[in-house]
Amino acid sequence: MPVNRRVTLAARPAGFPQESDFACDEVSSGSPGPGEVLVRVLWASVDPYQRGRMSEARSYAQPLEIGDVITSQSVGEVVESNDPRFSPAELVVGQLGWQEYAIARAGALRRIPPEVDPPSLALHALGATGFTAYFGLFDVGKPRAGDTVVVSAAAGAVGQIVGQLASIGGCRTVGIAGGPEKVRDLKELYGYDAAIDYKNDDVVAALRDERVDVYFDNVGGEISRAVQRRLTIGARIVICGQVSQYNAPKPEPSFHPGLLVVFRARMEGFLVSDYVHRFDEAARRLAAWLASGRINWREDVTEGLENAPRAFIGMLNGENRGKALVKVAERTT
Amino acid sequence: MPVNRRVTLAARPAGFPQESDFACDEVSSGSPGPGEVLVRVLWASVDPYQRGRMSEARSYAQPLEIGDVITSQSVGEVVESNDPRFSPAELVVGQLGWQEYAIARAGALRRIPPEVDPPSLALHALGATGFTAYFGLFDVGKPRAGDTVVVSAAAGAVGQIVGQLASIGGCRTVGIAGGPEKVRDLKELYGYDAAIDYKNDDVVAALRDERVDVYFDNVGGEISRAVQRRLTIGARIVICGQVSQYNAPKPEPSFHPGLLVVFRARMEGFLVSDYVHRFDEAARRLAAWLASGRINWREDVTEGLENAPRAFIGMLNGENRGKALVKVAERTT
Repeated sequence: MPVNRRVTLAARPAGFPQESDFACDEVSSGSPGPGEVLVRVLWASVDPYQRGRMSEARSYAQPLEIGDVITSQSVGEVVESNDPRFSPAELVVGQLGWQEYAIARAGALRRIPPEVDPPSLALHALGATGFTAYFGLFDVGKPRAGDTVVVSAAAGAVGQIVGQLASIGGCRTVGIAGGPEKVRDLKELYGYDAAIDYKNDDVVAALRDERVDVYFDNVGGEISRAVQRRLTIGARIVICGQVSQYNAPKPEPSFHPGLLVVFRARMEGFLVSDYVHRFDEAARRLAAWLASGRINWREDVTEGLENAPRAFIGMLNGENRGKALVKVAERTT
Repeated sequence: MPVNRRVTLAARPAGFPQESDFACDEVSSGSPGPGEVLVRVLWASVDPYQRGRMSEARSYAQPLEIGDVITSQSVGEVVESNDPRFSPAELVVGQLGWQEYAIARAGALRRIPPEVDPPSLALHALGATGFTAYFGLFDVGKPRAGDTVVVSAAAGAVGQIVGQLASIGGCRTVGIAGGPEKVRDLKELYGYDAAIDYKNDDVVAALRDERVDVYFDNVGGEISRAVQRRLTIGARIVICGQVSQYNAPKPEPSFHPGLLVVFRARMEGFLVSDYVHRFDEAARRLAAWLASGRINWREDVTEGLENAPRAFIGMLNGENRGKALVKVAERTT
């Protein structure tokens, strides 16, 4: 049984996470039981929702306990399989966590087909964040051709895909991100029709001539308040995340529901996990758009599992340019 | 031309309205032009939305100017008609305002059929607030039989109808209102399955065992925060009004949108005026339910146009028990 290096929760972060809130240890990988698969992790994902799991507050998922491996989607190769659906050396993706080896139930893994290249795409454009963009935009936001779709954290893992999907759907797209590099990506890589640098632009002024039919919100707070001034009658606000609130001791009430009467507007939250039965649909369509060059993507890769906490903290600070990932190991096969 | 007594806006209320924010004057009624109708007002409506019209802030409707007659729905009898659709002595309802005589375009009036008895029903259960309840609950809230529907300001003009419609639709209904008299009405008159007195009960504790599938919100603020703790997955929050905020200098942000992710919930605002093309549908169904005794109602009548400001201030204070109305004149015919 190989040695398994893991990153665990050492302490619940008080406000903004510190590296000392995480610990690195080594344990035996264990052996897979019946119906289980031992996976060697190659890539681990770094996502804002993980911050929620580190808090004690009950949410849509159980909080982590102190000492637990940090939850994440990871891509790995099968080392040993006790299930006929998987064979050694196959690439899989699943909720494997920040560790070098994971044992998973076969039914909780998805095989990564060879056309997903690089396989790390299964962690973003052709995985959870891509699916989040797809269902959040199309099923919740319901854009019509000609609509203006505004996206916050538009250069992030979800936002970069949302903008391109909205463009494919015939919408005008306005992306909001922090700093000139990300804003350049919004325009040159992700094809946003307009891009706003919230760190250097006056967001209210920049939106003055926009009419917001769909607001795909990843951040909440001040940026959302600026966008909401420009809603149209019948507008839809998709609540994907509220990253501006994740490190607050208590989320700040930031929204006045009366605004929804003024604009006869709808605000709706969703979780990608509710769409599992349609992941194949999203994967097929996203793959076709990637193959035809209609969807671009960017990864921000941190080398080494031990640096995952730093990558996570950096992402919460908005330092990543593209999907934040940790490269844990090279493929052996 | 008869003399027309009117109640006008004397000053924009600073916070809670005062009687001195209103003035009473007398002018000539004027004569109806082509396509217009002169109406003698019998009943004038008193509603929370009127507070919004008194503020300068742009909303879904133009604000009143100082000196304007206070906007309201009113019921009256036709005195003189320059339109073939209406004849003298017919009863009509329309946006006629707080005044004794009004000139209206014929197309903006609706005839009150004889079965609407008393005709003041055209101002509530068979009029704007009844339609508000009908479209807000069924079209926005989309309750299913077995759902629990919670209503704030449940003894108010809209709330009393919402609860009964939800019961007709096979839902469990929980009403929230202030004071023992209203709570008695909730149970005995409007058939709520459970009733909470927010002035005397601990609302959070009273809701502890409820699972809120639909929250029909007329008030916002603290009561809404208590209700929102008990949402179910996929819950719908119908924003009809936010009366707790109407006298605030600026509406207080009271809602954290991240809650919609936790519950994959939807919060949606609406205006009854967007459903004009379906008013006949609502009127027909509500009339049938009233006739069969499945919908009860209560009016809170203030005598005399000059007392309309007092009735309005009392309503904002929650002093009315049932739909707040002003009786302006007796029917002559």
